[in-house]
Order: sequence, then structure tokens, then C-alpha cells
Amino acid sequence: MNIHAKRIKDLQHLLRQNRLDAVVVARKLETYFLTGYNQDNVYMLVSRTGAWAFMPRMLLADFNAKVPFVDASAPDNLLDAVSLKVRELRLKKTAFEPETESYLRGNLWKKKGFVEQKGLTASLRAVKEGEEIGLLRKSCRIAAKAFGLIKPRIRTGRTELSVYRELEDLMQGMGASGTSFSLIVGFGPHSALPHHETSERKLRANEAVLLDYGCVYGGYCSDITRTYFHGRPTDEFKKVHAIVAASQKAGLKAVRAGVKTRLVDAACRDHIAEAGYGQYFIHGTGHGVGLEIHEAPTLNTKSEEVLRPGMAVTVEPGIYLHGKFGVRIEDSVLVTRTGCEILTKTA
Amino acid sequence: MNIHAKRIKDLQHLLRQNRLDAVVVARKLETYFLTGYNQDNVYMLVSRTGAWAFMPRMLLADFNAKVPFVDASAPDNLLDAVSLKVRELRLKKTAFEPETESYLRGNLWKKKGFVEQKGLTASLRAVKEGEEIGLLRKSCRIAAKAFGLIKPRIRTGRTELSVYRELEDLMQGMGASGTSFSLIVGFGPHSALPHHETSERKLRANEAVLLDYGCVYGGYCSDITRTYFHGRPTDEFKKVHAIVAASQKAGLKAVRAGVKTRLVDAACRDHIAEAGYGQYFIHGTGHGVGLEIHEAPTLNTKSEEVLRPGMAVTVEPGIYLHGKFGVRIEDSVLVTRTGCEILTKTA
Repeated sequence: MNIHAKRIKDLQHLLRQNRLDAVVVARKLETYFLTGYNQDNVYMLVSRTGAWAFMPRMLLADFNAKVPFVDASAPDNLLDAVSLKVRELRLKKTAFEPETESYLRGNLWKKKGFVEQKGLTASLRAVKEGEEIGLLRKSCRIAAKAFGLIKPRIRTGRTELSVYRELEDLMQGMGASGTSFSLIVGFGPHSALPHHETSERKLRANEAVLLDYGCVYGGYCSDITRTYFHGRPTDEFKKVHAIVAASQKAGLKAVRAGVKTRLVDAACRDHIAEAGYGQYFIHGTGHGVGLEIHEAPTLNTKSEEVLRPGMAVTVEPGIYLHGKFGVRIEDSVLVTRTGCEILTKTA
Repeated sequence: MNIHAKRIKDLQHLLRQNRLDAVVVARKLETYFLTGYNQDNVYMLVSRTGAWAFMPRMLLADFNAKVPFVDASAPDNLLDAVSLKVRELRLKKTAFEPETESYLRGNLWKKKGFVEQKGLTASLRAVKEGEEIGLLRKSCRIAAKAFGLIKPRIRTGRTELSVYRELEDLMQGMGASGTSFSLIVGFGPHSALPHHETSERKLRANEAVLLDYGCVYGGYCSDITRTYFHGRPTDEFKKVHAIVAASQKAGLKAVRAGVKTRLVDAACRDHIAEAGYGQYFIHGTGHGVGLEIHEAPTLNTKSEEVLRPGMAVTVEPGIYLHGKFGVRIEDSVLVTRTGCEILTKTA
């Protein structure tokens, strides 16, 4: 069966499990996941036994050619068309997904009598299967390979932005369609800002270099961070880098199916705290990656989700010494029954 | 005065006009517009006399260095911090902007007793002023210039995606930070799909080429479409191209401050209808451009907005002959008191 037709079937299975008659799916990310058709303003209604798509007239011919397994039409008003279909089919309990909706559209569904149900498409998206895994692996391999290529080219005097652009070009040259987010290239004290905005600052001799980057390949996002010292590392940098590396290793070791995500966070965090740097690890440990650079599950001190085989997550502890330097080490990994496969391995 | 401090002042003026005590602003696009700080998860409360920002701990040092004119802090819970501040200041009527909120967050504001108010930051963003205009002009000039550079390089046998990437590189080489959307490069029958997804299809001798693209420069998006015939144009192509060109010219002529946006749409649409191709113009005539590629105002058959000096909009009629070819011609323009300045002029 076509992978997208299978996903619709999986969603229908979730409808039955959740005692729902149907769900409306309207955000591009989800309609793309269910159909492979990558356009805004496609509203889908999926019932236990059928699937309908409503869209602007200008998309219809293209959609029909690419998605023959969904019944498509181009009504004047997409929202009304969905609720007309619900009435026509006499569906009693139709859900919408609150975490995917805008305030305005979500409240319109509510007004039509649809009910909130979290985690339908999100739980399908969180577990990668079939061709998704190959695309994600390739996306991560491209990113990892780019590190080996860019590192020798980062010389004193280069700007952060020039490194950003070369990373982008290198990854596109290997088949990526683009970057998976606004890449972070931080030199010297900029490495201590976890969300630094890449700038025109030039690299000086003897300072930290932090690269947090990734690409999109076949729609799938990779995410990797490497930090190293350009020149002769100070004792403090060496010490902090070793602590973060060991923390990240502890986190990777904790990853396996059945484990609560907050235990992976704890494995990283405890190591850094024991080394006396607890107050400098100022963010969560990781997040899911896939069609989005940040998706389910979340790995932080409070997250209660449980890792499942096929989930893809990042493990990325860091220590940030404001005004001096920061170190973050991040890999994207695929959760397996017994551990994980590191997708962004570098030499 | 700093441009961002001025925007906050303008927003405070709108609060008084709308008899509001304060507004909460939480989406990145708007907090960036108000502060110049480009990160997610910065929640702002703007009252008639003050402005406060709440954010994760890892952003605080960076924010304070870059945005000294806003009072910043890093509480445990951003949402609660906003409503605590509202209570502390005894603000009676605090608004949130429904068109900028997610379903979940918008409903949380509502639960805290905040009221819906549309069009506060959107109306500020719609009218470009000060340095914004220079950035937008430059963004559009880069895109326009790229057409002259890429056109002679689009030869038989090249793929749509290779043209996409070269356009991207050309624009980045001129200072753009990236593309303003997923560029549309459509060869032959692909040009008849207004939202075609750029593919590996190769250009053949004697067929249409449609390029719908733009870049981001200093945060501002440009948008331009050019359609031409690769080889010796058919009579039908020549005829359709001439109709769309005249339609677009009529649209541009209709643009000036004080005019309802739907009248610009009508100017384009009437010309195409009179030429007998009305049913093949299957989308609206244009949209605002700025920090987003699609923003206020909208130009279609139903839009009731009125053009104001400093608004930046696209004018982009098209005719699509399914299975054959499509022609769309688009410019980004700046609305003036007496007409408009075409920002994407090509030779």
C-alpha cells in the first residue's frame, strides 16, 4: 500500500481507539504527512472509512494527479464544505487537533460542534517508519558529513555568516533542499548564547567555535551541534568540553524504547550538576525531529512522554559561560528497542 | 528615537485609540517587529505607558544587551508572569491578537480574562516606514536583478530545481539571507500550476518558463514572477502573455492610497474576463509583503481593505491553461499618495 494511504488507515485506527467518528486536519504539515501533497489550504476530513479533501480551485488538478486515493473537491468555502460533509455522513463525534490549529480556525471548528482531541496525527508523526527512516538517515548523514568538510575551512578572519552560507551550500550540494532552521554559527563569546543569531563577527585566533545546524532532505530535518576550539584550547575549555561530552554520552546511553524522556534529561543533567556546572545548563536536553525541526516528544526535566521504537530525538546538553564561551554537543538519534542509532555520527 | 522604541509607542497610541489598557504579544514575528529581537518564546506585555518582556533564562542576557528599552525577566512560567504583571499594574482591559495566536495559547489568554482585538500590530506592520522601506526596496532590487542574471542561463536540459538553487545563490551573493518562500520554477505544463512544487523536470526546447521567487533582505521579503517562452513562442502563448501583461498594467495603474484593494483586483480581473479568459484566472490578485511573504492587506474580489501610503503589495494576475502552460506576471509595489513605486522592475 502507498505510504500515505497507510497513514490515513493508521489515523482511522486511532479514530476507532478514541471513539471518534472523524477528524478534520487542516494544517499543511499534517495534510502533507497524510497525502504527500505539500500545499497550504487543503482541509481534510478523515472518517473511520473515508477521506475527503477540500481546497482552492487552483490546486485541484494538481492534487488529483498526485493524490488519487483521496476524494478531492474545490468548494467556495472550505470550512463550510467540511461541516456539510459531516452532516451528509451523519457523523456524530468529529474532532479537531488543538495543538495544530490557529486560534481563529480552532474556534470555528469548535463552533461547528467539533471536539478537541490532542495527539492523533502527532503520535503517528512521532514514530518514523518505512521510507521516512531512510530520508531521516540521509538528512542526518549529510549534516554530519558537512562538519568534516567545513571544519578545516573555518579560519581566522572568516565571518559567522560566511560559514553559515558555506554549510548551506555544502549540504545542498549533497542533495539537501535547504537548512532545517536558522543555523547557529557562534564564535568566541557568541558560543555562550544558545540561540545566538549568526552575525558578521569574524573568528579570532584562539576562541571557541559552535556550529548548530542541520538540513532538510526529502522533507526530513536533521539537527547536530559541534563545539571545538580554534587554536590552542584553554584549560577551562578543555574541562568544560569534557564534561559536556560525558554528559551527552550518558544521555545517549539512557535512550531506549520504554524509557521516560525526562530520564534522558536527568542522565545529562545529573552529570553536569555533579561536575559543578548545573546552573549553566539552561535549557532542555532535546526534542523530536522529523518533518519539523522541533516536534514530539520533548526531553526536559518535566516531560512525561515515553520513548517508542522509531522515534527520532536529539540529545544536546550544554554549558554556557556568559561572556566567555559555551559548549553544546548534539546528535540526532533513532530510538530502538535496546538503545539508539546515532544518525549524525562524525569522525 | 530607536525605530523599535517608536513602534512600541505607536502600539501604545493604538491602545488608547481602542480604549485598551494593554496588549499581550507573544508570536515571534510581532515581538521581533517591536524589539528587533528575533527569537521564539518572548512574551511581551505592552501597556499605555510601559513594556515588559518575559522569556526563557537562556535568552535573557542576549535580550538585555540588544533591547535595553524593554524591561526583561526570565520567570518560570511566561503565561503566569504576564497575568501577574497585569494584576500588579491593575490593568482592567488587556487584549490579545486573535490572528496571531495559536488555538491553545489564545484560549489561555481568554481564560485569564484578556479580550480579543484584531489588527493592532498588523496595522502597524502593514504600513512600512523608516528603514523598513530601504530594506524592502533592496530585497526587491536583488530579486529583480537576479532575473536578468538567471534568464540567459536557463537552457534546454536544465532542471527546475537547479534553477531554484542558482536563483537562491545569486540572491545570496547579492546580500540576501535566503529565499522568501519555496520558489516556484515551472517548465512547460508545470507553469499552469499556480502552486507548482519545483521538481527535477528538465526544460525542453520550445516551452514556457515561469519563475515565481523572491528573497529576504534584512528580514524583508520580496516577491516577483516572470513568465517567458523558451524558444519560439506559439501564437497562443503570445496572445495569453499579452493579455496578462495588460491586465497587470491595469492593476498597477489602479494602485494608489485611498483605493479599496478589491478595485485593484477588479482592474486586473475585468481585463482578463473581457479577453475571454476569466475562468482561467483562478486566484486573487495580490497580498501585502514585508516581514512575511503574505501579510495584510489582501487584494481579491471580496477584500474591503483600503490602500494606505507605505503599504507594500503584490499585483499578480495570471491565466492557467491546464496541461499546456500558464502565464503569471507579478511585481511588488509600494503604495504612494498618487500611485505606486514598482519595486521589482526588470529590464
